[in-house]
This record gives sequence, C-alpha cells and structure tokens, in this order.
Amino acid sequence: MSAARDRAGRGGGLLATDFYQLTMLHAYEYAGMGDRATFEFFFRRPQPTRGFLLAAGLGTLAREIETAGFTPEEIAWLRETGRFPDEMIDRLAEWRFTGDLDAVAEGTLIFGDEPILRVEAPIAEAQLIETLVINHLHFQTLIASKAARMVLTAPDAQLIDFGLRRAHGMEAGVRAARAAYLAGFAGTATTSAGLAFAIPLYGTMAHSFIQAHDSEEQAFLDFALARPADTTLLIDTYDTERAAAKVVTLAETLRARGIAVRGVRIDSGDLAAHARAVRAILDEGGLDDVRIVASGGIDEWTLRDLVRSGAPIDSYGIGTSLTTSQDRPAIDCGYKLVAYAGTPRRKLSEGKVLWPGAKQLFRHHGGDGTIDHDVLALADEALDGEPLLRPAMREGRCLDLPTLEEARATARENLARLPDRLKDLDTPGDYDVRISSGLRALADSMAKEGR
Amino acid sequence: MSAARDRAGRGGGLLATDFYQLTMLHAYEYAGMGDRATFEFFFRRPQPTRGFLLAAGLGTLAREIETAGFTPEEIAWLRETGRFPDEMIDRLAEWRFTGDLDAVAEGTLIFGDEPILRVEAPIAEAQLIETLVINHLHFQTLIASKAARMVLTAPDAQLIDFGLRRAHGMEAGVRAARAAYLAGFAGTATTSAGLAFAIPLYGTMAHSFIQAHDSEEQAFLDFALARPADTTLLIDTYDTERAAAKVVTLAETLRARGIAVRGVRIDSGDLAAHARAVRAILDEGGLDDVRIVASGGIDEWTLRDLVRSGAPIDSYGIGTSLTTSQDRPAIDCGYKLVAYAGTPRRKLSEGKVLWPGAKQLFRHHGGDGTIDHDVLALADEALDGEPLLRPAMREGRCLDLPTLEEARATARENLARLPDRLKDLDTPGDYDVRISSGLRALADSMAKEGR
Repeated sequence: MSAARDRAGRGGGLLATDFYQLTMLHAYEYAGMGDRATFEFFFRRPQPTRGFLLAAGLGTLAREIETAGFTPEEIAWLRETGRFPDEMIDRLAEWRFTGDLDAVAEGTLIFGDEPILRVEAPIAEAQLIETLVINHLHFQTLIASKAARMVLTAPDAQLIDFGLRRAHGMEAGVRAARAAYLAGFAGTATTSAGLAFAIPLYGTMAHSFIQAHDSEEQAFLDFALARPADTTLLIDTYDTERAAAKVVTLAETLRARGIAVRGVRIDSGDLAAHARAVRAILDEGGLDDVRIVASGGIDEWTLRDLVRSGAPIDSYGIGTSLTTSQDRPAIDCGYKLVAYAGTPRRKLSEGKVLWPGAKQLFRHHGGDGTIDHDVLALADEALDGEPLLRPAMREGRCLDLPTLEEARATARENLARLPDRLKDLDTPGDYDVRISSGLRALADSMAKEGR
Repeated sequence: MSAARDRAGRGGGLLATDFYQLTMLHAYEYAGMGDRATFEFFFRRPQPTRGFLLAAGLGTLAREIETAGFTPEEIAWLRETGRFPDEMIDRLAEWRFTGDLDAVAEGTLIFGDEPILRVEAPIAEAQLIETLVINHLHFQTLIASKAARMVLTAPDAQLIDFGLRRAHGMEAGVRAARAAYLAGFAGTATTSAGLAFAIPLYGTMAHSFIQAHDSEEQAFLDFALARPADTTLLIDTYDTERAAAKVVTLAETLRARGIAVRGVRIDSGDLAAHARAVRAILDEGGLDDVRIVASGGIDEWTLRDLVRSGAPIDSYGIGTSLTTSQDRPAIDCGYKLVAYAGTPRRKLSEGKVLWPGAKQLFRHHGGDGTIDHDVLALADEALDGEPLLRPAMREGRCLDLPTLEEARATARENLARLPDRLKDLDTPGDYDVRISSGLRALADSMAKEGR
C-alpha cells in the first residue's frame, strides 16, 4: 500500500479527482444514465490584464487520459472506504476512457468564453476526467500566457525559467518549464524538464558556492577550471563591480589555458545600473563577448522597464513571477455539460449563463495577417474561417498530436499575428468573439422553452 | 526510458532540481571541497498582509530526502547529456543523503527571517537537496498559512478544500489538501488525499449532474436514492429558492423511505441572501437539521463578510483562493549557507544581508498564554524560552516525526496562542524577533573583518 500512498501523495493516477466525480458516477449508474454527453472546457471572460491567452496543456493531458485508470491498490483502498457499492468498484477496476476529444492546438491564441476542448463520451467517463482536464489546461495555459507576455516584452533577449523552487510543487515546476518553453522561453534550469521534454538546460552557480570559498576569485577559478565550456560567473555576492573587475583579471589567466568566460550573472540591486557598469568594465577589459545575465524578482513589468532603459542585458533568468503566474495565479474557467443524449443543455445559474450545444470556433485574419475576430458556432455549422477545434483523441486513443517543438512553432506564429492593442500588460483591448446565427437560434429557442 | 520520462514529467525524484546544483557539485568535486556545511531555510520579512505563517511541509520533505536518489535510467540520461564527467555520474548513481536536519515542527507559528529548517551535511549534499527543500516548505507553508487565515475568520464553520482543479498541478492539489487539513480544515474533495494522508473526504454533485437530468426533481431523487447516507443537493443550477422548495417536497417522499436529506449547496449569486432565504424555506418545511453549504469564489475576505452578516451557512467549500494562495501565490524565502568547514558565512548582496552561523530560535509566551517574542540565537547558545528547531533527521534517517493528526493538533494549539493584532487580514501588527547577544557579537566581529 505504501507505493499506492506515494503515488496518491504526488497526485498521480485517476484517484486525483474530486470526490464528487465518484459519487456522481455512483448515482448515474444507479439511475441507469449512460448516454453520451458533450462537455466543453473554456476560460471565462473578462480576464483583466490578460489581453490574450496561449493554449497549453493538451499534450500532457491527452497522454494522461489515454492511460488513466486505477491500480489494484487504489481499488482496494476505494473498497475499504465503504462509501461505494462493490459492483461499482469492480467496474472502476476496469475503467478506461473510450471517448473523443477535439481541441485547440497548443500554442494557439485563445480568448475568454471560447471552448478550447470538447469531450464527447458516456457521461460518467466525461465526468470522471473533469478534474484532470481542468488541472492540466488551466495551469499550463496560465503559465504559457504569462511566459508569452514576457517573450513579447523582451523579444531580443534570451529568457530562461529559474522558477522550480517556488512553483507549487515539483510537478508544477516541470510543467511550468514546458509551458514557458512552448511560449518561447529559450530553456529552463529544471533538470528533469530536460529528460521529460528535451528542453535545453541552463545553470551555473549559487551564492553559496561563492561563500563556501575563502575568496571570490578562488570560487570563480575553481568553477572555470571544472567547467570550461560553461563558465557563467555569479558576481553579486559581495560587490558587483569589484567582482566584474576580478572577472577581467581572471579571464587573462584562463585565456592562457584556452578557457573563455561565457557570461556573468547579476542577481540583486539595481539591475540596469549594475549591468551598465559591469558592461563598461568588461568591455574595457576586452571582454565584449561576455554576456550579462540578470535575475532576481523579474516579471514582465521589470522586464519592460529594463528593455526600455536600454540596459545591456543579454539574458534573463525568471523565476517566481513566471512559475506561479504571480500577479494572477488563477484564471476563471469551467468544464460544462453542453449536451446529453443528443439534446443541448446549459446552466442558468446567476452570472454564469452559458451557450448550449457542441461548438466549433472559426478564426478570421485581417489583411495585415493579424487575427481579427472569431466566430463561436455550433459544431455542425459549416462557416468560413479557420476551424480551431480539431480531433485530438478518438475512442480513447490519442491521434497524432503535435510535438512540443511543433507547438512552440505554433506559438511563435500565433504571437506574430497578435494585434498590438492586445499586448498591453495592464489595460489590453478586447478581442471580438462573435456568435453564429445557428448558435444564437438554438439559445433563443431554448430560452423560449425555459431551458 | 519512457517510465523515467514519465517520472521526470511529474517532478519525481532528485532530478527535479535546479541544473546549477549539478554544475556546482561538479565544481566542488573538482576543487576537492567536501567539508560539512550548514544551510538554513527561512521566509523573508516583511510579508505584507501576512501577520503570521504556519510551518508546513517538513513531513513530506523529510521522507522525500530520506529516499532521494537517481534511478538507473536517470543516470543513463545524465550521462547522455555529455555535460558531466563519468566519475561524477558514477558517484551520483550511489547518491544518498547522509546529513542532519533540525526543523520547526509542522503546525508551529513562524515569522519572517526565522530559520525553520537547518541542514548540516557535506556541502554538495546540502546543496543538492536545496530545490526540494524550498519547494516543499514554501508551498505547504504558503497554503497552511492561507488556510489558517480562513480557519481563524470562520472558527465555527466547517471548511472543506474544493481546490484541486485550479491548483498548479495535481501534486499541488494533494499537498494543498494536506496543508489545509493541517491548518484546521475539516477535509477535502481531493480523493487521493484520502489515500495518501487519511484526510476526510467530502463531495456530492456538480451542476452537470442536474443538467443531465430532464428535471431538477429527478436529479435530486436519483442522487438521494443512490446515496441515502450522503445526500447534499446542489440547488443553484436554475433557481435557488425554487430548488429549496423542491427539496422540502422531496424530503417527505424520502422520509417515507427512511432517507434524510443532509444538506444543500449554493454555488453562485449573493450567498448570504440565498442562504437566508433557503434557511427560511427549509425551516418552514420542517427541515431545520438540513445544513447549508456555500461555495464559489470564497476567500478569507468573503468569509469574513459572510460570518459578520450572520448568514446561516454551516459549511464552506473553498477552492481556488486556497490552493493557489490567490492574493499572494509566493512568499519570498531563501536557503542560505551559514557555515562551511566550521566557519560562519554569510551573503552581503544588496538588500539581502543575513545573520551568519548555525542558529536556534527561542519562543517566549506572555502571561495570557499568547506568544510574545522570539529570540534568534546561535545554535550553541543556551537561552531561556522554548527552542523551536528540533532534530528531525540524523545521518540521513528520519527520526520519529509527528503524524499529520499531531501536526494538526500543534496548529490548533499554536493558533489559539496567536495575539489578535497578528490576525488582521490586511494590516496585521508586527511580531518581535530579537537577536541574541551571541549572534550579534558574531555578526559584528565578521563585519570588522569585512566578511
């Protein structure tokens, strides 16, 4: 049981689900309700300070759904709880997802109230994957969108994810690395993201490495000799400018041994002022090819200020603000039933009225290539524009999904098509999402029937 | 390799570490630096809007460190990267943590600039666990502290964690359930937290369950018949008060079959107004023992308003605001070298000057039993007060750590000793953390030597 407990403690497996998914499953079985249902996942609008979102998470979600199920230990534990009938537990032991998924490709620009995933499956199956769906799509889209704001703010700089330590769990750190890379970051410091997703890895030294040595010079020298191809030196442990001068002196010694210093990192203080002073010291010392890396509390606003000030920073390490989406750590979103047994459905709770029926999104571009508007339509309407929801899974099997590199290319193309008015970090403009006549007619007819 | 990739993608194992931990390890080995080091983990002050923090995460962290290592597949992958010498990789294959941990017990009130964990180990070992240490302690303390704010705000209500779906990953959801329970929540909707940590599970039905039925009455009936011991009905899908009236009618039918409705849940609209109206309808129908559960966008401020308004709500389901610590999704913290090879060390970077040397914390209580002040001292000073850092691990083995239930009892006792001025949700008072004369003398003597 201890392996099962360990897996559960890490949130692995289908048991990481809201308990009501199981109580509902029980009630559906009791009531003999096994018809196919359609659910859609969407972010709600408005999203203040978020002019756009970048879809992410489908890649990890689809693989997770494909293999989702319960281990014998998990089944035994569920039985022990005494909260479900034995026949239901027996069926759970054999549970596999058999439904269909249609989704917006990872890296696509999306907006509030747009369905980005459609699930069609027997109702209890579509219900049982709800928590997994929301968790994957919400978090990775959140982080990819945050990362994209940074990428657009500093398009000429190299951005590196430094945020594993303050991410909400180790899994969050690895998934954030994936989402940031998808959005255009150059790489990550999270080692396991290299193994899991083949993301380029970056990393040099911490202050403790400098402090553990009797002198800063010795620490720099030890590191350079140990890792001659990898020499980025952290220069703010004691006095940033003095350390830059030490780097100039050291570089001569190292040059004689065929080693070139690659970069210096500044992690505290006035980053722009230090970068300028350090750049001057390095250039004067003939080290104009040594790159300056800045880190420490950077978000898209400090990035904007640093870029505007012309600070000579080549690369940024970005941590907490990225991996926690610090200014906005959650975005309102929902996974809603839109049809059951062939009949469109919707929820009417106050402030949360939704469009009924299985839907499709059609995107239209303007003459300059930027995105112009979307049309939210019924899935069976044949309209102009690029349909964004595409088959991702059929009968429980993943179709040929884009690789992470392909998703990254999609993100690059999409971000290049984003109108400037949506890029503002604080008060972005609005994007036009229109409702098709077919969808409006369905909603009107349901309203007349009081549904 | 695909199992290794899966584990890496979930952030499992020691490979979920910052890449610089490995480059530093390489340089330490190259330089022959293998002496013992002391690192301390602490949250920084000030923490605006956080009058106190509640320590959490040590329980999961210590077990993780005890078993940390690299699998053969991870070792093979590290070798393939070509970024480290073979001898270093060979040693990593055998890596085990052999050091000592002293820590503040989970559930203890802590404050900014107080070390809550002290690690003593060969420097490369203490360094290699850094990311794990920060990730576990930061996130669970963040969530336990957020949950404690809610528990103090609504001391008479039952609080349930509903936040798995919007947590930053599935692992974050399960760990948040643990931290919230530790802080005094009654339970969680996250099923796997029941298996992993024996936390009580709660859950009933989603709106989709109601919508899938042809009528709300039928949905209520199906659920009650399927789960007679568990009947909390969601009443806001269409019209909250009308649904409450349906519950009254249904209760008569059910009574005849020996089934009692346990509760109703309201998830949207003006929760106080709906709760009052629903309470009146239920009471009038003879259902004064039916509990009212409220959910939907609740945080500590809405909780405070609901409690102050006297809204007749018995239980709250709290999601996103809890599991993302939404108003403050990260707290500044650090894991810093304070001694190496028997010599105290510290970092002097701008704005981040730290106290050197291995330390202990002594807590003092006032006459009324509330906490009064702490004294930050050197680990070898024998001072009055309750020493908060206690042995948790020796030579890589966990000592007898408190269970989650024991930690929960500690939290209850600690929160009862919290002075009112520290409870304010927005502008809490300050807590007095004094510096011992021994620690001050050490810092002064280092300053004189320019260290």
